[in-house]
Amino acid sequence: MPGYVAPLADMSFTLNHVADLEQLSKLDGFQHADPDTVDAILDEAGRFFSEVIAPLNRVGDEAGSLLNEDGTITTPDGFKEAYRMFVESGWAGAHMPTEWGGGGLPYTVGVVINEMFKSANLAFSLCPMLTHGSVEALKHHGSEDLLENFAEKLVSGEWTGTMHLTEPEAGSDVGALRTKAIPQDDGTYRLFGTKIFITWGEHDLTDNIIHFVLARTPDAPPGTRGISMFVVPKFVLDSSGRPGRRNDYKIVSVEHKLGIHASPTCVVSFGDGGEGAVGYLLGDELAGMRNMFTMMNAARIGVGMEGLAISERAYQQALAFAQQRVQGRAVGSSEEVAIVEHPDVRRMLMTMKSYIEAMRALVVVTAQEGDYAVHGESEPRKQRALDLLALLTPVVKAWCTDVGVELTSLGIQVHGGMGYVEETGAAQHFRDSRIAPIYEGTNGIQAIDLVTRKLPMRNGEVVRSFITEMTRVLDEMDDHPELGSFRTELSTAIKGLADTSTWLGERMAAGDVNDALAGATAYLTQLGTVAGGWLMAKAAVAALSNPTIADPGFLTEKVNTARFYGEHLLPKANGLISTITAGNSLLENASLTVM
Amino acid sequence: MPGYVAPLADMSFTLNHVADLEQLSKLDGFQHADPDTVDAILDEAGRFFSEVIAPLNRVGDEAGSLLNEDGTITTPDGFKEAYRMFVESGWAGAHMPTEWGGGGLPYTVGVVINEMFKSANLAFSLCPMLTHGSVEALKHHGSEDLLENFAEKLVSGEWTGTMHLTEPEAGSDVGALRTKAIPQDDGTYRLFGTKIFITWGEHDLTDNIIHFVLARTPDAPPGTRGISMFVVPKFVLDSSGRPGRRNDYKIVSVEHKLGIHASPTCVVSFGDGGEGAVGYLLGDELAGMRNMFTMMNAARIGVGMEGLAISERAYQQALAFAQQRVQGRAVGSSEEVAIVEHPDVRRMLMTMKSYIEAMRALVVVTAQEGDYAVHGESEPRKQRALDLLALLTPVVKAWCTDVGVELTSLGIQVHGGMGYVEETGAAQHFRDSRIAPIYEGTNGIQAIDLVTRKLPMRNGEVVRSFITEMTRVLDEMDDHPELGSFRTELSTAIKGLADTSTWLGERMAAGDVNDALAGATAYLTQLGTVAGGWLMAKAAVAALSNPTIADPGFLTEKVNTARFYGEHLLPKANGLISTITAGNSLLENASLTVM
Repeated sequence: MPGYVAPLADMSFTLNHVADLEQLSKLDGFQHADPDTVDAILDEAGRFFSEVIAPLNRVGDEAGSLLNEDGTITTPDGFKEAYRMFVESGWAGAHMPTEWGGGGLPYTVGVVINEMFKSANLAFSLCPMLTHGSVEALKHHGSEDLLENFAEKLVSGEWTGTMHLTEPEAGSDVGALRTKAIPQDDGTYRLFGTKIFITWGEHDLTDNIIHFVLARTPDAPPGTRGISMFVVPKFVLDSSGRPGRRNDYKIVSVEHKLGIHASPTCVVSFGDGGEGAVGYLLGDELAGMRNMFTMMNAARIGVGMEGLAISERAYQQALAFAQQRVQGRAVGSSEEVAIVEHPDVRRMLMTMKSYIEAMRALVVVTAQEGDYAVHGESEPRKQRALDLLALLTPVVKAWCTDVGVELTSLGIQVHGGMGYVEETGAAQHFRDSRIAPIYEGTNGIQAIDLVTRKLPMRNGEVVRSFITEMTRVLDEMDDHPELGSFRTELSTAIKGLADTSTWLGERMAAGDVNDALAGATAYLTQLGTVAGGWLMAKAAVAALSNPTIADPGFLTEKVNTARFYGEHLLPKANGLISTITAGNSLLENASLTVM
Repeated sequence: MPGYVAPLADMSFTLNHVADLEQLSKLDGFQHADPDTVDAILDEAGRFFSEVIAPLNRVGDEAGSLLNEDGTITTPDGFKEAYRMFVESGWAGAHMPTEWGGGGLPYTVGVVINEMFKSANLAFSLCPMLTHGSVEALKHHGSEDLLENFAEKLVSGEWTGTMHLTEPEAGSDVGALRTKAIPQDDGTYRLFGTKIFITWGEHDLTDNIIHFVLARTPDAPPGTRGISMFVVPKFVLDSSGRPGRRNDYKIVSVEHKLGIHASPTCVVSFGDGGEGAVGYLLGDELAGMRNMFTMMNAARIGVGMEGLAISERAYQQALAFAQQRVQGRAVGSSEEVAIVEHPDVRRMLMTMKSYIEAMRALVVVTAQEGDYAVHGESEPRKQRALDLLALLTPVVKAWCTDVGVELTSLGIQVHGGMGYVEETGAAQHFRDSRIAPIYEGTNGIQAIDLVTRKLPMRNGEVVRSFITEMTRVLDEMDDHPELGSFRTELSTAIKGLADTSTWLGERMAAGDVNDALAGATAYLTQLGTVAGGWLMAKAAVAALSNPTIADPGFLTEKVNTARFYGEHLLPKANGLISTITAGNSLLENASLTVM
């Protein structure tokens, strides 16, 4: 089974010529992240994740993380040592704040490093991803005490963080949760309740695990307005700040899942011993949802990236197979060829490659807005970045993960019968990929968020200005006749997106929310597909305009891949317009039964 | 976990008002299959497959069929007894020839019964499906001796049949196979070689297993022209026709697969004992490929049906979950509702339901052509049926199985986090469905078959007259104003299909085969999607024109589902036109690498 090689040339090109790393590195706090330094860092990261983390992907799938009778969890062979190396080499905190010992790299660079981790070993990568989310929550809402006790350990990865949102009767509807937090005289709380689907809720990688738990205080109002967030360490810290006595919760069970077997998905029962789990309020009481979104927005981009990352791994595996598997003859020849020579196999591989590059560009450009939202040179620039980040976060999460399932499925198909045999490894990517459209808010929830919250931002001005920004690349394409067909398709696709955006905006404004909801998922797909086309067009223009910015072979291939996206994949976006604007009436009238 | 209920109302409606069972039952040999009798048979079949076969689906997935040290295979608990009941109740031979003890039902009805088996238990259903294929080969090419020895036992299901095509170096390229068949003085052959991916190649359900094996005779020409087919029983029959000594082959291993765990996928080594496995030539020497296609064409429709059948099972499970899972509030209400009330969940369920009904219609109508090809009232009618069967077989195989993966994925998504937990059962359907685009000729091979062999039939007249036939429903839709939007979409979609058919035909005629191959898969998707639209339009017209042909609630729902197909799903077909006609140049120029 082939391993994983970080696609460094495309990562660097995307950072520098689709995003703008040089500009970014001029901002306060990022001066150390100049393009050359970043290239060197990525080179080193690529080696680490390929050599240390990627080889554990298959063993993790086969062995899984297992619950022991005493409630502890044993991770697969090799995970503990690899995690130690991950922490020691500093990758855990690479893009986290320097004041707590992080590397302070821009998030834009951080997502590229995270892509490597997720390609190398998706199940493993979830543990640091959730830790990263918990650092975000601490950073924005944590008191000095909490920061002092937990920030450095979480940034370094010496301890890990988890998110506790879901309960048996509270999934997408977080507001239905029932876990209780009872205030104590000493200012702490005691938690009682059951949480499910807790990713890396328990493991043997670190000395402590810090749980970030949503719960209700007594007399809190019902629904989402009554939720607060609590920091619940596995081992309560003693007076010296070291892990002390075991907190009062237990791991009830670990789910038997379709994929990501190495990631233990726990059912956690708080207060089982009767006294309640000691927790510390994070931020204000009743501000739990805001805190949750702080954690979750980063995690949503992280999950969106999973669609990209696992597709890259599946692509590398499918390509290697197609290059070595000899079968059949090319048209007009009697000689047997490797299947990579057959047009339909090339179609599958090019579909994978083009979508991957488009997704990578979208993830990096969105992360760049995340950096400008904090480090932007002016308030208007920060606000524009915040708006764009808000608009694109659900698109990154849902579009990339839907595409990820599609591409890992193609990865199997390239293998033919061998793809269905587990030992080949292609099936694992397919199984692993299937979680990403579900967790951190299902893709349906993302589409609802996009249409009901993000489209109406500033009376639709955010999406309109984003669409206007996309049209700018059309003028640049005029200088390059080889992009003629691509330009025609992109122009049509952007026009289609403008039309559906207007239609949905009008429905929302008229209060016909269900009509907008009926088209929400297809609209998100359209927006992702068109945004991918815009970024691939930018990449093609950059490659054609500046023949010295990268290896000539790379640039030629980039233009070819971009054109494939524009001429073969992008046109599908307009096939969605009818369903987006069809409204809710057929759905509403449907009598869904088995007959 | 919910079980399975046969969708009898839709099956009956499709047989009678999309296909034309009454007309079919007037043909010689089918007089006993009048609509009322068929309804009664389907009712009984529905009970059998729901009650006896469906409950074994999950246990089959969990336990799998296991290879023992002595080379035998043990099927999961309950399979043996259920198979015995299947044979005894006569379902095994329901649509097989009466002269060998079969029920003689039209194939059109047989596919509906088979759909039930496949919905109930896909892995289990493969065993009779391959037996059916072997009966087809025997019927068309078998000598009197072979028929006498094997036909009745295979028709009744007392013995099962298998297909041996693939070898380690001969997958899609069957012509590369190397298994040898050495003629003996007594007219039999001795076989030596290794076959892989042999579905139900060994099991404990019956006293004998009859292998239909492709092999090369000495001095046979290379490639597909040098292949012959042999009948190789597990136990060589003694002089009284009863299973005698064990033939010289062994089961080397069983694959560890993504899904269909209850179906043992074997590696079989012939002639391991040195003397060679005794085989009997089936049909003419060197006619193996023709015989193979006789077996395989039936199997291809059978596999296409798997996309339909597993989607139906996944739909029933997702619907049941959505009806009982309470979560969130409807727009403008403060009351919690079952998630089936949310527009985006309804969208997923309606997408499943509409595609399912369209696939069912396509499978049944294609099978009906299979019946007319044999029983048609005139030679021209038979020829027309043969042509249409040839055109639609790759579409049924590939389109339905691609859609099946998409719909079982939606089935998971409806469940949210629970869908990713194996115990829920939704994940099994997703895993099981993924084999269908691969076996019996990958979907890429189907697309190549469609574009390079079927489109050029009669200089393109077959596809042109099929398209003309589809346009007829447009006039009928004119009488029903509620079908106005659907009619507009269908008219556009048929026009798009006519255009791409012409373009591909011209490329083939000009010898630009690679341009046609580059667009083949997208064209097959387009053709399947449009044909589905045509049949859903026929269904809607029938339902609106004849308000007494079924339960009024059913007819109202049918019109709604048909319109959903037409207004929400069908429009995607036109989004494929650009990629179909984009040609091969970008694929050809692609330097597929990891950079």
